[in-house]
Amino acid sequence: MIDLNSDLGEGFGAWSMGDDAALLEIVTSANIACGFHAGDPSIMRRTCELAVARGVRIGAHISYRDLAGFGRRAMAVPPRELSDECLYQIGALDAFARAAGDRVRYVKPHGALYHAASADRAVADAVAGAAASFGGLGLLGLPGSQLAAAAAAAGIEFYAEGFADRAYTPAGTLVSRSAPGSVLDEESALAQAVSIAVDGQTSDVDGARVAVHARSLCVHGDSPGAVAMARAIRDALVGKGIGVEAFA
Amino acid sequence: MIDLNSDLGEGFGAWSMGDDAALLEIVTSANIACGFHAGDPSIMRRTCELAVARGVRIGAHISYRDLAGFGRRAMAVPPRELSDECLYQIGALDAFARAAGDRVRYVKPHGALYHAASADRAVADAVAGAAASFGGLGLLGLPGSQLAAAAAAAGIEFYAEGFADRAYTPAGTLVSRSAPGSVLDEESALAQAVSIAVDGQTSDVDGARVAVHARSLCVHGDSPGAVAMARAIRDALVGKGIGVEAFA
Amino acid sequence: MIDLNSDLGEGFGAWSMGDDAALLEIVTSANIACGFHAGDPSIMRRTCELAVARGVRIGAHISYRDLAGFGRRAMAVPPRELSDECLYQIGALDAFARAAGDRVRYVKPHGALYHAASADRAVADAVAGAAASFGGLGLLGLPGSQLAAAAAAAGIEFYAEGFADRAYTPAGTLVSRSAPGSVLDEESALAQAVSIAVDGQTSDVDGARVAVHARSLCVHGDSPGAVAMARAIRDALVGKGIGVEAFA
Amino acid sequence: MIDLNSDLGEGFGAWSMGDDAALLEIVTSANIACGFHAGDPSIMRRTCELAVARGVRIGAHISYRDLAGFGRRAMAVPPRELSDECLYQIGALDAFARAAGDRVRYVKPHGALYHAASADRAVADAVAGAAASFGGLGLLGLPGSQLAAAAAAAGIEFYAEGFADRAYTPAGTLVSRSAPGSVLDEESALAQAVSIAVDGQTSDVDGARVAVHARSLCVHGDSPGAVAMARAIRDALVGKGIGVEAFA
Repeated sequence: MIDLNSDLGEGFGAWSMGDDAALLEIVTSANIACGFHAGDPSIMRRTCELAVARGVRIGAHISYRDLAGFGRRAMAVPPRELSDECLYQIGALDAFARAAGDRVRYVKPHGALYHAASADRAVADAVAGAAASFGGLGLLGLPGSQLAAAAAAAGIEFYAEGFADRAYTPAGTLVSRSAPGSVLDEESALAQAVSIAVDGQTSDVDGARVAVHARSLCVHGDSPGAVAMARAIRDALVGKGIGVEAFA
Repeated sequence: MIDLNSDLGEGFGAWSMGDDAALLEIVTSANIACGFHAGDPSIMRRTCELAVARGVRIGAHISYRDLAGFGRRAMAVPPRELSDECLYQIGALDAFARAAGDRVRYVKPHGALYHAASADRAVADAVAGAAASFGGLGLLGLPGSQLAAAAAAAGIEFYAEGFADRAYTPAGTLVSRSAPGSVLDEESALAQAVSIAVDGQTSDVDGARVAVHARSLCVHGDSPGAVAMARAIRDALVGKGIGVEAFA
Repeated sequence: MIDLNSDLGEGFGAWSMGDDAALLEIVTSANIACGFHAGDPSIMRRTCELAVARGVRIGAHISYRDLAGFGRRAMAVPPRELSDECLYQIGALDAFARAAGDRVRYVKPHGALYHAASADRAVADAVAGAAASFGGLGLLGLPGSQLAAAAAAAGIEFYAEGFADRAYTPAGTLVSRSAPGSVLDEESALAQAVSIAVDGQTSDVDGARVAVHARSLCVHGDSPGAVAMARAIRDALVGKGIGVEAFA
Repeated sequence: MIDLNSDLGEGFGAWSMGDDAALLEIVTSANIACGFHAGDPSIMRRTCELAVARGVRIGAHISYRDLAGFGRRAMAVPPRELSDECLYQIGALDAFARAAGDRVRYVKPHGALYHAASADRAVADAVAGAAASFGGLGLLGLPGSQLAAAAAAAGIEFYAEGFADRAYTPAGTLVSRSAPGSVLDEESALAQAVSIAVDGQTSDVDGARVAVHARSLCVHGDSPGAVAMARAIRDALVGKGIGVEAFA
């Protein structure tokens, strides 16, 4: 049994991004933008309504306050202040989730905050602290990361995610995007998705077996090809008899 | 028995405004800014913590999205979009209220939104709809206003507020600030505060009696003189044996 | 001889809008967003560079400060403050225009500000004052509008624009978008473009002749159909021997 | 002969900061905020008008886009994008400087950008590139910094600034604020101001002589004590027969 998660609700005002409706037919968990890197209140409401209607779980996709940079620019935010910024976003999204009949079920940091929370314990603790203070929400992120350690220390759940289309190092971390061979072709990605879901392992960049324990696979939807790939992954999993179900 | 409410948490980032600590010793209800006209996440957290520590009720002081104009510039926001912007702010503040051990108890529109929601039913309905969808929160505003009507239609409480230092028309509305005699001197303001609290009436601008039914009096704190006046009003009420207690 | 103008550079951060490259092959004047409704600094730079490379004139497409509403929500900004907000945008864009080898040649208000400046003299004066104080830039807008009057009073040029695809009233104003027949079909729009350019008149909504003096025609590019239509208009004008040249 | 510079125009909307009017009687160069960390268009206009009326030179005090953090939070902005953000701010301020009868004379990075541009050559080059492309403006900053090197490489002036109230290391850099003895008492600060201005040197943290070549001294005005200190520094310089004059 595995979950599929994707980033949704990433338009803002007059601007749209991605095919949310298509992805909500595929994924089981929706990381919904909360207004700091993308997502205005009306987009948040509509995305929550659509997610609830599809039975998709709602997660708060929290970010640094950086609309102009789409949350992709690292920021040196003092931890206490960062934690407050995270909690603000979680609360705002939860209002729409509840109005739609559900609630926020988990938290996933976005972009530069995802990277910082994976590598920097102080950032991870700030994120975990915000999630813990909101009824003890769990976190979705990289297995073995500082965020995983922070979740354990905060006494909240940690849901590990894997990537179908990214090459893994022998240590089980992701090969940097700038390295050759870091992104898999479609066939390899489908095989890796199934391998992670069924066996909890895959082939690393050197061809050796490496453990990848993941309760969710992250899929993308920002291009027609990406949506088709997400659907192919779901179909491949289902075809192998793997249940595609939300973790939260 | 009457409530005293005031606008709090109206700093932003490096900028501060008003003497929140002093006012939280005086008032029983705190209208806390939610980030759209003032109030960043850390200020929201600290103001909620202080309010809870003082036993002061927390209200969401929601606004148009207008930091540059401090929410004082009317905006033609489509009602559905406006309602979503209101709900976003309420949810964000509630996260800090809950982390501090309480929750948001009521909603009060700020500045240009206060005026628009008093006069324009579509705006009032948008505000009331947001409050109603957040667990049926009540609204604080002008008696006899469109906001009062919208609250009734939405099936939520409406808490009427009065003003100690503003002259009333024979119809029980406020004399426009631009008119002579619109703002009372300190002695008259203290007398009006007591009169509204004890008798539910005051002298209008022509000296005749006019009914002012109010469950709360709005006091200000943006200058040393204002804080002293707020304290004088509280002392005058207590001196007359009137209980100063939160409505929510 | 007539000019073709279009709104360009209306993306923001990770979000794009319209096909600027295609439109810059068609139009002679580019209304470039300045960061208040759309357009971040990098988009402004690239759009200016592209415009200069194509010999297209640069105009400052100024707006209310409203990214979330794309500048489509009317705002009650005090005139002096509004004028300052306009001048800020003009100066910012001019820096990129100069870096690209040209300069801002005219000013056109966007969205809700366009409508307000057409109908409200105080708003029009604020816009005209900003343009006048920036080296006496001219304004592009509706003929007969308050903006035209404000330009005359400020001693700056006013460039009247017409619309190929919008029906005109007998008074020479635009039929409201909400009215039936307000938007022309493609064939009628091409005919109207030529008629305005050649004869300075067109058929009004009742079929009578109405004068439309315009030094520029506004074309759109936010859909593949819109770009094709813009090209068809240009081709029709050129086919009739009309010079398509910038006014500024 | 030496210049005195200070940060001005650092309010935003309803919020004010510092005593600009008092400082403009003291300093010869005004680093004026450009809207990214502080400073709205109306504040920019009024500060430019006041500066020109006092004969004070106008500098663009550019920042990361971070109103919520007052530009004090380091941001990993790609250099090309950063350079565009800098140029945007310079152009916007120049519009107000010109409307007031002068123009922007130099550029000084603010807060986290100041620190990054001092230490990181790529950041420094981005800042210098923006200044160079705006008519070859000079930069104000730390002597010996990466910003100084970037200015030299870009072929623009570099104006070194010193600090009256900060202890210097034997290498001529500032002792970190977190270290004991990093901030001088008033008497030492006055002596250091005169020593830097007259001799181009001061006593370092160990009591040895260290060269500090500075064409400007940075003074602060964010408290009554700070303004008095700034005035005392100016008086001490004038008392020693040193001309206090703008560098630009």
